[in-house]
Amino acid sequence: MKTRDKILLSSLELFNERGERNVTTNHIAAHLAISPGNLYYHFRNKSDIIYEIFLEYEKLVDFYLDIPENRPITLEDLTFYLESVFDGLWSYRFFHRDLEYLLDSDLRLRTDYREFTERCLAAISRIFEKLADAGIIEPQPEELRFAMSLNVWLVITNWMAYLKTAHASEGHGSLNLTHLKQGIYQVLTLEIPYLTAEYREQVMQLREKYRPELPAALGNFDGRVLSQK
Amino acid sequence: MKTRDKILLSSLELFNERGERNVTTNHIAAHLAISPGNLYYHFRNKSDIIYEIFLEYEKLVDFYLDIPENRPITLEDLTFYLESVFDGLWSYRFFHRDLEYLLDSDLRLRTDYREFTERCLAAISRIFEKLADAGIIEPQPEELRFAMSLNVWLVITNWMAYLKTAHASEGHGSLNLTHLKQGIYQVLTLEIPYLTAEYREQVMQLREKYRPELPAALGNFDGRVLSQK
Repeated sequence: MKTRDKILLSSLELFNERGERNVTTNHIAAHLAISPGNLYYHFRNKSDIIYEIFLEYEKLVDFYLDIPENRPITLEDLTFYLESVFDGLWSYRFFHRDLEYLLDSDLRLRTDYREFTERCLAAISRIFEKLADAGIIEPQPEELRFAMSLNVWLVITNWMAYLKTAHASEGHGSLNLTHLKQGIYQVLTLEIPYLTAEYREQVMQLREKYRPELPAALGNFDGRVLSQK
Repeated sequence: MKTRDKILLSSLELFNERGERNVTTNHIAAHLAISPGNLYYHFRNKSDIIYEIFLEYEKLVDFYLDIPENRPITLEDLTFYLESVFDGLWSYRFFHRDLEYLLDSDLRLRTDYREFTERCLAAISRIFEKLADAGIIEPQPEELRFAMSLNVWLVITNWMAYLKTAHASEGHGSLNLTHLKQGIYQVLTLEIPYLTAEYREQVMQLREKYRPELPAALGNFDGRVLSQK
């Protein structure tokens, strides 16, 4: 692996583990056992590293959200999109944590992130449209579909922050990919009222696989629900 | 006004304007033209100030979300809850920006914030229940109601971050309370499929008042929708 790629990989690892704010270029160089000078040969500063990592994240999500236009989409596709988006969020989890700060510090990133958001929203909206074409959900007027896509985006991008702030008594390390993917339950909740009779049971079963097991509010709630049954 | 209260008020103002991370206790003392010693007489450190501000925020939201148990709730109540919650988010807007960092730095805050979230989720769920009692929405099973309440919470608490990151070309000062309250449109979107025939038109009209005018994706989208009409 080239030094440049090693730097990106180690940086991502350190940012995710310790939080971007707590990691300097010196930490990254030390972690790789290279000199700071060597690091600066490849990247002018931390912002440049973060920007390159964002470009990779963007490429990954664009790849995942490439929607087939020559065939109807299936429930398997939907599952793949949802799983992939949460995989991406996990792999680049430092990014959404300090997003506003990162965007304030780098104009390129700010502009690119806005376009990235727009592309993601358009992709979500297109998925809703194709789900309707495939008879999985009822068709929706364009305007409602867009407002729903934005809600899907808001739920997805806020889920990790919710887990971290709601799991108040636990440490950093407690959050894992399984918890994160339970956000899929919340996303599918948004679609329930629009499901067609034909697919309702299948989607509800899929959703059930991701039911959150939260120690906080939701946990108590579930306990109550179960005990009443 | 007592010095202690002046310190809290000025701190809140400075945190909201400049971001909590960029404001030190020295800035606050200078802003009030008091000595740092005088400030430290009232608060040991910035964390103590933030904690006291959180307690006020919490009191405010608890006051707003006090649900009448002796009468049915109305659409006016719902409007009041939504307006108030976004007013609160605006008045204490620094808080949600760096929430994870703030909670990591103060264990009391972390524990209190978790309980606060649980109370808010229970209040949202109770509002759904009373909206069903009042015939405004169709009744929902407890479990769905809770998942929906969590989605409402995720949409509300992520709306400001979305605006800030989607309005990428604009500066800090561009976000105002009107933009923020357009989040109500997104929250009401979640309720559309559950509205009863009797109230549907009224709620849709209420929602229309908050339609976002976003320069980014949604703006383009609306333009397209309008031009097709």
